[in-house]
Amino acid sequence: MSSGENYTAEIIELRREIEQIRQDFADNDNAFFLCSMALVIFFMQCGFAFLEAGAVRSKNTTNILIKNLLDSCISVIGYWSLGWAFAFGDSSNKVVGLFIGHSQFFLSGLINYPMFFYQYAFAATSATIVSGAVAERCEFANYIVYSTLISTVVYPILTHWGWHKEGWMYRGIQTSDIHTTYMDFAGAGIVHLCGGIISLAGAYIIGPRIGRFSKDGNEDPLEIKGHSVPFVALGGFILMFGFLAFNGGSMADIVQPGEGEIVALAMVNTILCGAFAALTFLIIHYLTKGKWTLLLTINACLTGMVSSCAGCNNMEPWASSFTGIGAGLVYLGLSNLLIKMKVDDPLDAFAVHGGGGLWGMLSACIITRKGVAYAIANAIGNNNGLLLCSQAFAQLGWQMICVLAIITWSLLWMIPIFLFLKKIGKLRVAPEIEINGLDIYKHGEAAYPLHAYGHGWDDYEPIKEKSLQNYGKLNSNTESDPQC
Amino acid sequence: MSSGENYTAEIIELRREIEQIRQDFADNDNAFFLCSMALVIFFMQCGFAFLEAGAVRSKNTTNILIKNLLDSCISVIGYWSLGWAFAFGDSSNKVVGLFIGHSQFFLSGLINYPMFFYQYAFAATSATIVSGAVAERCEFANYIVYSTLISTVVYPILTHWGWHKEGWMYRGIQTSDIHTTYMDFAGAGIVHLCGGIISLAGAYIIGPRIGRFSKDGNEDPLEIKGHSVPFVALGGFILMFGFLAFNGGSMADIVQPGEGEIVALAMVNTILCGAFAALTFLIIHYLTKGKWTLLLTINACLTGMVSSCAGCNNMEPWASSFTGIGAGLVYLGLSNLLIKMKVDDPLDAFAVHGGGGLWGMLSACIITRKGVAYAIANAIGNNNGLLLCSQAFAQLGWQMICVLAIITWSLLWMIPIFLFLKKIGKLRVAPEIEINGLDIYKHGEAAYPLHAYGHGWDDYEPIKEKSLQNYGKLNSNTESDPQC
Amino acid sequence: MSSGENYTAEIIELRREIEQIRQDFADNDNAFFLCSMALVIFFMQCGFAFLEAGAVRSKNTTNILIKNLLDSCISVIGYWSLGWAFAFGDSSNKVVGLFIGHSQFFLSGLINYPMFFYQYAFAATSATIVSGAVAERCEFANYIVYSTLISTVVYPILTHWGWHKEGWMYRGIQTSDIHTTYMDFAGAGIVHLCGGIISLAGAYIIGPRIGRFSKDGNEDPLEIKGHSVPFVALGGFILMFGFLAFNGGSMADIVQPGEGEIVALAMVNTILCGAFAALTFLIIHYLTKGKWTLLLTINACLTGMVSSCAGCNNMEPWASSFTGIGAGLVYLGLSNLLIKMKVDDPLDAFAVHGGGGLWGMLSACIITRKGVAYAIANAIGNNNGLLLCSQAFAQLGWQMICVLAIITWSLLWMIPIFLFLKKIGKLRVAPEIEINGLDIYKHGEAAYPLHAYGHGWDDYEPIKEKSLQNYGKLNSNTESDPQC
Repeated sequence: MSSGENYTAEIIELRREIEQIRQDFADNDNAFFLCSMALVIFFMQCGFAFLEAGAVRSKNTTNILIKNLLDSCISVIGYWSLGWAFAFGDSSNKVVGLFIGHSQFFLSGLINYPMFFYQYAFAATSATIVSGAVAERCEFANYIVYSTLISTVVYPILTHWGWHKEGWMYRGIQTSDIHTTYMDFAGAGIVHLCGGIISLAGAYIIGPRIGRFSKDGNEDPLEIKGHSVPFVALGGFILMFGFLAFNGGSMADIVQPGEGEIVALAMVNTILCGAFAALTFLIIHYLTKGKWTLLLTINACLTGMVSSCAGCNNMEPWASSFTGIGAGLVYLGLSNLLIKMKVDDPLDAFAVHGGGGLWGMLSACIITRKGVAYAIANAIGNNNGLLLCSQAFAQLGWQMICVLAIITWSLLWMIPIFLFLKKIGKLRVAPEIEINGLDIYKHGEAAYPLHAYGHGWDDYEPIKEKSLQNYGKLNSNTESDPQC
Repeated sequence: MSSGENYTAEIIELRREIEQIRQDFADNDNAFFLCSMALVIFFMQCGFAFLEAGAVRSKNTTNILIKNLLDSCISVIGYWSLGWAFAFGDSSNKVVGLFIGHSQFFLSGLINYPMFFYQYAFAATSATIVSGAVAERCEFANYIVYSTLISTVVYPILTHWGWHKEGWMYRGIQTSDIHTTYMDFAGAGIVHLCGGIISLAGAYIIGPRIGRFSKDGNEDPLEIKGHSVPFVALGGFILMFGFLAFNGGSMADIVQPGEGEIVALAMVNTILCGAFAALTFLIIHYLTKGKWTLLLTINACLTGMVSSCAGCNNMEPWASSFTGIGAGLVYLGLSNLLIKMKVDDPLDAFAVHGGGGLWGMLSACIITRKGVAYAIANAIGNNNGLLLCSQAFAQLGWQMICVLAIITWSLLWMIPIFLFLKKIGKLRVAPEIEINGLDIYKHGEAAYPLHAYGHGWDDYEPIKEKSLQNYGKLNSNTESDPQC
Repeated sequence: MSSGENYTAEIIELRREIEQIRQDFADNDNAFFLCSMALVIFFMQCGFAFLEAGAVRSKNTTNILIKNLLDSCISVIGYWSLGWAFAFGDSSNKVVGLFIGHSQFFLSGLINYPMFFYQYAFAATSATIVSGAVAERCEFANYIVYSTLISTVVYPILTHWGWHKEGWMYRGIQTSDIHTTYMDFAGAGIVHLCGGIISLAGAYIIGPRIGRFSKDGNEDPLEIKGHSVPFVALGGFILMFGFLAFNGGSMADIVQPGEGEIVALAMVNTILCGAFAALTFLIIHYLTKGKWTLLLTINACLTGMVSSCAGCNNMEPWASSFTGIGAGLVYLGLSNLLIKMKVDDPLDAFAVHGGGGLWGMLSACIITRKGVAYAIANAIGNNNGLLLCSQAFAQLGWQMICVLAIITWSLLWMIPIFLFLKKIGKLRVAPEIEINGLDIYKHGEAAYPLHAYGHGWDDYEPIKEKSLQNYGKLNSNTESDPQC
């Protein structure tokens, strides 16, 4: 009898121990996973900085770099003080809770720091997208205002709608037959569409750079080239690297059975979507223009990766080919459309993030598992085909409502802000400053100070020059040297 | 009785639970490990891009960058569609299975996405090595053809031979006394020797850049300098960072007891080999040439890291000093040999990857545990010394057979391809394009467009100039400024 | 009876199995955590390289890059051979063990490779800090000597004092009421204060760069600008990325309950401190100078991150605002002080690492949990308030003793070395070399060789020029182009 009690007690104790081990490892593994993915996502700030720095003229390089540095700084303070509370704080009121959280301001009472760090990395990304669209002419005050607002209010509340269990987009429409929710694994809508549409509004309201479009409209628009293709490529590579963590990390958990596989699937789909978008665009560009463009191919690749955000966890790799090819076409169409509309978006932030995000949101309801395409295929000769289809179309419908809500919300905040700043003269720098460059006037720091160049070994290079003459013309025209 | 049954059932249930926890954590931990290492390896594409971009002239910078971008894109599509199936697909036929896999095309039926993502990152690396050897003169079509072929066919089949449990190199010769296998932890042979030997073939067949060697052979070869030492260094640092993940991650598992320690040992050996190779080379170079070269030291360091690939999991740290010093000498010898042979390999891709890979393959059978050196040391005054030695030498012999197989296979594919492309005029660009530069003609994108430079604050720099005069000559010769 | 024995045996066996699983996962998880954090910390070498490369003139760029490359190489050999043994080797003698370890030379007998790899990454960081302070004029021999010494002797012994369980700083003063120890989670004192104070000594003894300060002292000091703001920003972003791993990884363990949360808390505090320091400095600079400086804001941000090192694991996020704002002010004060003292520290290595480290060491005893501020707050109307306060002040006192010990130890080693090198003429390059630049003379490699620039498509850029004229003056003054 007593031994029976002992066994019972020991078995209960063992079970408790096992549960404890599971819990401890689960907590630590998740923390490690979130922190390391967030680290890589944080590094995307460097990617954006160089993508944009390479795409502007040398006279505005310091200006765009400091914007990207401050993004990280401003958004951590904004997200720590208010943003997290709006996004993931609970609400005591159920109706209010559909729209906004309001607890854990300044992280008071927070335990789950890994999740905060991860979500902060996302918030910083959403704030950083816009700077490309208003580059080379944006007032510093404008930049600080919109960066603060997006990371503190606009983006956090969207995440509450879509990713908090009480949010209205997340809860969706629930009937006995139909269950809809917000389907956006890694923020195609919340992060990229939000940032992209604000970019469009910003670029439109601030107006094109001086010289970009002629006044009478008879001439072709002038392509204003950035000063460093390698910097654009550096930024592009860092962003590709970061996107894999951005999408894979959105699992936000790596403990339940099968979650590791989904993380990897998300990463594979991300790179596949990027690759298909890049090659689609490159081939069309080559066939129409005869050149193998690097700069636009990078943008197309990023559009593909953005478009994979919504459904990369839930999509067979072959479906990535559709998503990716679509993204390449979307980028091609939107970037040309903006030029036709005479909207000057130097980084194509709208085409990449807005277009990619929108297309990703739709495709996530079409060619992912249980999507519209699957439902139609299954419906043929199937008893409950109608039910499958109505569920799939209802989901697609709800997704479109969410898309409209994201666009509306973002614009409702930002258009008045931009117009107000325009009215008080804090939207755009004066023409003289724009023409002469922002770096020296605003920051006192030329990106490449003249006096920092040159060396005194006069007889070093001429020696080479002499030996070069023996081999024919290598650099005949030093006058038109692109570097000088 | 009934309580006894209960205890038995409960204990069985507990055991099942424990096993389930072990399995779940193992799967997720491995997935997380593979994905995060693959992420860093993927970033090596950025490293190769900048190592190469800095080492070419500014007129070919966009060209080399787009090659590296497309590597990632082409190889993910090639490896997803065919490569993985050839490499890690099973074969129903045992004889066929020795040489090639043929299932899971387009990843159909695949569950282990983490492993696919990891192996893709390797495939992309193998494809990217060659571009350095044919830089500044390679036709775009040539590049697309070889990149596709390597990542889709040549490299995957080699991995099947060496890393799939049915592959002939992996199975090796098995007798009662002797057990040989393919000893290559992280791909010194499969990845680097393969890429390096194809680089040699490519550089030889395509011929040297115009001006590199004089026709009569009386003059010294002309060193054609790359346009940016900092970019080379950036690439080198990123590659060092990536190599640590490349070699550590090759454990491909982090669950069994002791695996974590091996991962760390591999990383430690990698950095030690790189350090010894770099310092060995640098000291010799300083003693013979009187200069502390950065560019060649970076290459030597990378050669050391390549050479550690084969045995870094199985080598005491002190043995890394031998492997590293050897790698420094191998790099020194091979890079000079190629110049003597008038083969123009702008990035020393053959010396770094081919030489490092070959030396790594051999050293892995010599100074790793159970290697030839250990066997000889143990054989002295030992009863079964002969057996130890015969095993060690048999392994070395088998390793050399594998090396020959890798070289032969790689060349059998690529030499005909290169010759065919040469015949149809798609191997190399026309001399006029080569002399004037590929960027503008092929891509329409100068790396540093002239008009993107300069600012309008005329009175900004002269102020400085004035104050400079008070301190003497700092930059007296603005005419021979290297930047202009 | 027999079934009772069976149950007992089975339960014991189950318990053993559970313990085994816990141990295996713990070992592997910790290894994975340490290796991946060390990877990112290793990448900080690239960050330092570019922060420094961008801040020097183009004629000294190769020189500073090779220094940073060799740091990684020299310190791995030094730390492997001696450093680890001094730092974490045990001592058989208790008194000797207070000051230095002396076992596991050349890692003989080492099992815990993950910890070695992690600690090596730290050692490499401590050695790399100094190169910024002596940039543009330091003899190569000097660099090799101090880099070897710091990573092999000076830094390892400090870590023994503070982080080895036998070290005297770690053991602290223990009475019945008061328990003091060395409170420095991630090396604010051991790594940064050590590196920073050596930087000050180095910069002072080597003297200012030619032209930095006028001889009669009547004129303002001449700001010698670095050649590339984007490179400084690249380095800054990489260092911010690395710092998160540097501080989070200092948990050095991710298995015990709650450790994952502390890792994330450390990362959050790191970025918050950086952000507050950056914004504090930027606002003061703007109010006093009227410019939004990027370069100094990056330094301020790094100072904030350095200052978070000591207490980031133990500090509420709101307390980071104090630490960060303080760090911004410390940086502002010290960087100006050094200019007043006519000490030329081109990278502000002392202000960033020395100032940030010192402030971090103090603030860790003031506003972290159980710090002086908490103790005083708790003491009001509390019975054992006096005890709390005396503990907190005793800890602060001990911390100041440790700070003094670190400074004294570092200077006692390095001042004689620097003076000796000065005496034998191996401290500083000759004035002619300094004026003409180190790259070509010392390394034979100009950072941007003139002949590597330019292309032959004469008619490409003029076409653009024509269309530009229609839009007004964009780059009127090509003569004063900063790039030429």
